[in-house]
Amino acid sequence: MDDTRISLAHGNGGRFMRELIEDVFARQLSASEIDVQADAVPIDLGDGEVMITTDGFTVQPLEFPGGDIGSLAVHGTINDVAMAGARPLYLSAGFVIEEGFPLADLSRIVASMAAASKEAGIPVVTGDTKVVERGKGDGVFITTTGVGLVPEGVRISADRARPGDAILVNGTIGDHGVAVMSRRENLAFETDILSDSAALHGLVAAMIEHVPGIRAMRDPTRGGLAATLNEIARQSGVGMIVREDALPVKGVVAGACELLGLDPLNVANEGKLVAFCPAEDAAELLAAMRDHPLGRDAAVIGQVVEDPNNFVQMETVFGGRRMVDWLAGEQLPRIC
Amino acid sequence: MDDTRISLAHGNGGRFMRELIEDVFARQLSASEIDVQADAVPIDLGDGEVMITTDGFTVQPLEFPGGDIGSLAVHGTINDVAMAGARPLYLSAGFVIEEGFPLADLSRIVASMAAASKEAGIPVVTGDTKVVERGKGDGVFITTTGVGLVPEGVRISADRARPGDAILVNGTIGDHGVAVMSRRENLAFETDILSDSAALHGLVAAMIEHVPGIRAMRDPTRGGLAATLNEIARQSGVGMIVREDALPVKGVVAGACELLGLDPLNVANEGKLVAFCPAEDAAELLAAMRDHPLGRDAAVIGQVVEDPNNFVQMETVFGGRRMVDWLAGEQLPRIC
Repeated sequence: MDDTRISLAHGNGGRFMRELIEDVFARQLSASEIDVQADAVPIDLGDGEVMITTDGFTVQPLEFPGGDIGSLAVHGTINDVAMAGARPLYLSAGFVIEEGFPLADLSRIVASMAAASKEAGIPVVTGDTKVVERGKGDGVFITTTGVGLVPEGVRISADRARPGDAILVNGTIGDHGVAVMSRRENLAFETDILSDSAALHGLVAAMIEHVPGIRAMRDPTRGGLAATLNEIARQSGVGMIVREDALPVKGVVAGACELLGLDPLNVANEGKLVAFCPAEDAAELLAAMRDHPLGRDAAVIGQVVEDPNNFVQMETVFGGRRMVDWLAGEQLPRIC
Repeated sequence: MDDTRISLAHGNGGRFMRELIEDVFARQLSASEIDVQADAVPIDLGDGEVMITTDGFTVQPLEFPGGDIGSLAVHGTINDVAMAGARPLYLSAGFVIEEGFPLADLSRIVASMAAASKEAGIPVVTGDTKVVERGKGDGVFITTTGVGLVPEGVRISADRARPGDAILVNGTIGDHGVAVMSRRENLAFETDILSDSAALHGLVAAMIEHVPGIRAMRDPTRGGLAATLNEIARQSGVGMIVREDALPVKGVVAGACELLGLDPLNVANEGKLVAFCPAEDAAELLAAMRDHPLGRDAAVIGQVVEDPNNFVQMETVFGGRRMVDWLAGEQLPRIC
């Protein structure tokens, strides 16, 4: 047996599995308080409204410029909790590992997960590993769950955007998707773009502190900003007008998108959020965002309007308008 | 495009994904209160110690006598919460689906999950779907997370077994593993055995009501009773003696195990628990278990002893003793 690769015995509940969990997971995630002996572990939530979220990660390649599936799984789940206005407190992680996957790669991914968890201050407290036969998986899939608490008085929800509200983003869009695609075997192109993968809970806390009346927030991951704006338009029963010239897009990302025949609006982000607030709070919210390291390039990108069709429209740089639609067919599989 | 099968577009964050989630997941899990619009959803936990667990499910075949991956994912996660003495309250579920997987199969699995959740009274409140290319997955993998509350005064933990304690199980062992293996392509044999897959939180509540001093509990899933007894022996720093003639095993399961060269002690269960309590409480605990539909065949199977080596030993029907060891190599991949 090749002991540098995952074997089916690493998933059978016996001694090899225990050793894998102790050597690879517990050792690296121990700063993160994981209890590998228990199936269920206690968590202290304090008082308040508890939020829970679950997210699967299947990104390919597993490692990409600016991150990997381990850090991404931590950031993505923290962000889903934070978008509800909640303070993330704990994470759990389930791994489905393919037989033959190199132990060194697994260890590096878990180390990256541990580092992301430590930097964010949100421990991974419990987890699970399963092993599937070669050809029945793809290296490793991670499913993370996050729980958090909503501070008293905060009420942020995707159905609360109102006509007149300002729409803000915290920085350039499309970076994550372009960074991942730049390493796809069939696409590989030269770029120095890094994924924007980051935990946004600190930024969100600063935003709420300055503007407690934020109405809605969401992180535009899979499906990009276009999908997120359409989701919120639909849930809030409103329309939106976004200004193309206000949208922060890095030149190299715009160029890569043109090369690939993509619209940056459909490309995934992993360290971005879109926020909605009353127009009169927009300047203060923008300033609070720009004061935070993860909001330096924040911008007001448009406004909410009345629209019984819940359309999201773009005022182009040429002065016309076009529809901003969801993706219909397939474009960017396994971007997160 | 064949709209009876999962396509990559079902995972891209766009319109097809929204339709899949609304048509297949939301409709069936709606009794289960799932909110498909939100990434994070509020849960009400009340007061007490909160427990959290995460579990991955990769069973093959996806449907087996007595259950499927959907019901199994619900039962397995409820049981992990219940084994900590906690009352399970909420579940979340993450799906990794293979391109080309029939929508009808997915829908049946989700319906089974909804039915198991409804029967147990534990709603699935949030979830996630990802789609991977054909040949990069195996139908569907499910990762579930469960949260629950430990009632005041209950203190059940795998490190609390003490010399002299009685060891009890709630029924016959090995049923799940044999039921699943009976449907494996390379093994298919004739048997009418059904998986014991079941949610044990009701049984656990009845047990705690009668014997609040239960020291430790665990569900012997992957790795079987042998792995579970060894885990608890190690965590509690004790040894154990189990009596072979006291161990409930169905004749057909014993026969199938002999045929397959397996020991029922290593075979997975999904509706069984092993409990440890002071010897003086054993009779009352046994009676409470037998009073419950999921404990009709409960038995005292042995006792905890002092042993610096933390060995688990079996008194055989022939009067000798043998070691009950963990599985080392591979035997039963993807049994849960």
